[in-house]
Amino acid sequence: MVDATSLPLLRTVASVRAHVAAWRERGQSVALVPTMGALHDGHLSLVRMGRAQADRVVASVFVNPRQFAPAEDFDAYPRDEMRDAELLAHAQCDVMYCPSPEEMYPAGFATTVSLEGPALTLEGATRPIHFAGVATVVAKLLGQVRPDVAIFGEKDYQQLMVVKRMARDLDLGVDILGAPTLREADGLAMSSRNAYLSADERVVAGRMNQILAEGVKALSGGADWARIEAECKKGLEAAGFQRVDYVAVRDASSLAELPPGAVRSPARILAAASIGRTRLIDNMAVG
Amino acid sequence: MVDATSLPLLRTVASVRAHVAAWRERGQSVALVPTMGALHDGHLSLVRMGRAQADRVVASVFVNPRQFAPAEDFDAYPRDEMRDAELLAHAQCDVMYCPSPEEMYPAGFATTVSLEGPALTLEGATRPIHFAGVATVVAKLLGQVRPDVAIFGEKDYQQLMVVKRMARDLDLGVDILGAPTLREADGLAMSSRNAYLSADERVVAGRMNQILAEGVKALSGGADWARIEAECKKGLEAAGFQRVDYVAVRDASSLAELPPGAVRSPARILAAASIGRTRLIDNMAVG
Repeated sequence: MVDATSLPLLRTVASVRAHVAAWRERGQSVALVPTMGALHDGHLSLVRMGRAQADRVVASVFVNPRQFAPAEDFDAYPRDEMRDAELLAHAQCDVMYCPSPEEMYPAGFATTVSLEGPALTLEGATRPIHFAGVATVVAKLLGQVRPDVAIFGEKDYQQLMVVKRMARDLDLGVDILGAPTLREADGLAMSSRNAYLSADERVVAGRMNQILAEGVKALSGGADWARIEAECKKGLEAAGFQRVDYVAVRDASSLAELPPGAVRSPARILAAASIGRTRLIDNMAVG
Repeated sequence: MVDATSLPLLRTVASVRAHVAAWRERGQSVALVPTMGALHDGHLSLVRMGRAQADRVVASVFVNPRQFAPAEDFDAYPRDEMRDAELLAHAQCDVMYCPSPEEMYPAGFATTVSLEGPALTLEGATRPIHFAGVATVVAKLLGQVRPDVAIFGEKDYQQLMVVKRMARDLDLGVDILGAPTLREADGLAMSSRNAYLSADERVVAGRMNQILAEGVKALSGGADWARIEAECKKGLEAAGFQRVDYVAVRDASSLAELPPGAVRSPARILAAASIGRTRLIDNMAVG
């Protein structure tokens, strides 16, 4: 029996710093799991990885207004703090940190962390302010908590590469770790946005990972990556996705384009496509 | 007798982190004094303030290419590492940290810290990339050293306000302190760029602080700030400055424009002007 009320719920920078300072006094190491709430098993696997990596785990829950464009789903994004607290308590998280937008961005806030490199392509091309918003809030969370490690899901693979780059570039002194994507029975990557899907859309959604897996298989057999990108795109459209933003085979770290032909170095296949009003992303390692 | 060779000269992030970690093990606090070298008594007063504030003082010497525009004096900027080391050793600095540009910005570096607010006006208007370069390198230095306090001269007052804003916005957990400007006998603010001045130019340069001081006196007597800005500008031109970029009376913290009329809240008068090929800045508290 775990009682959600046993999980400290902190709302201020000062309180999370005080908690972490007390742990540091005792020589304990700290992992941070940044989330936007609406938690599912994928997030909880990040908390478990945090427990394996450090003595203490802080999970932050903050729906960051600065990474949504005006037309995106900031207001509609699912929020259920009590349920999130119960799930985190069960997963033996030590602290749930839920700052308000005013705590995170007080009056006069004027700073933006922005990236070139891995942030300019794919999601960065279709959502131009997105990664600056992500990098800024992650820099702040890392400054507030000062963890030894921070854990991000590979589901948002480009975000993981952007955060790794940013943490290295700003010498934040934290290890950024990626955790494997958790999947439903049909392989659909777990995502808070899956909650938006109707029953029919849910069936279509489950095809994305299968189409990417077929692409990975062909690439591993030496297929030309440009051909596989085109075939996966066609496959997603045929499966019922109404808009395919991209299917891209890229360098696994920089997300730069590859030389033409077969894939000869660590790579990743990444896709984004919409069904109805829901936009889904997924990705897999190549080779 | 102080021997410059007794001062550890560190060139890598790893080595400065190791030094600081050893001090932390012993419970010692740390001050950082970021400089671009070409040290003068003004810098040494920052080191002394560091000694008063913390157990250990790191002075960094790094001429940051990212805060100079292509047409500016990056290549010509004065550099004399051995002299800087001797001065720092005399001032009882504990470590001189001199990273190379490649150590600071390794291949693939992709991140920029930029600000609105205090960074958009004055120096930010005439040198558009300047403060993004400053904020980025200071964020990195603070991440590398993780000091308790960092000390900047009030001579670069707008820089001080930009760094304060950035450190607060990114939750860097460091106190940013300003140190009063040191001045020559005629009141000229000490600056590494004073070395560029010919004997004739040096005489003109010494008038800037006197003209600003007259402005402060008039403002304290209730004069309209817009009139004083115009009078100081005329005074600088009459004194022999060939180009006056600005004379501005602004809010002391945000550097925002003031309501018309007399100054009624903490304010600062700031000026930038050129003699020959040398551009000088200075500033004073109002009231």
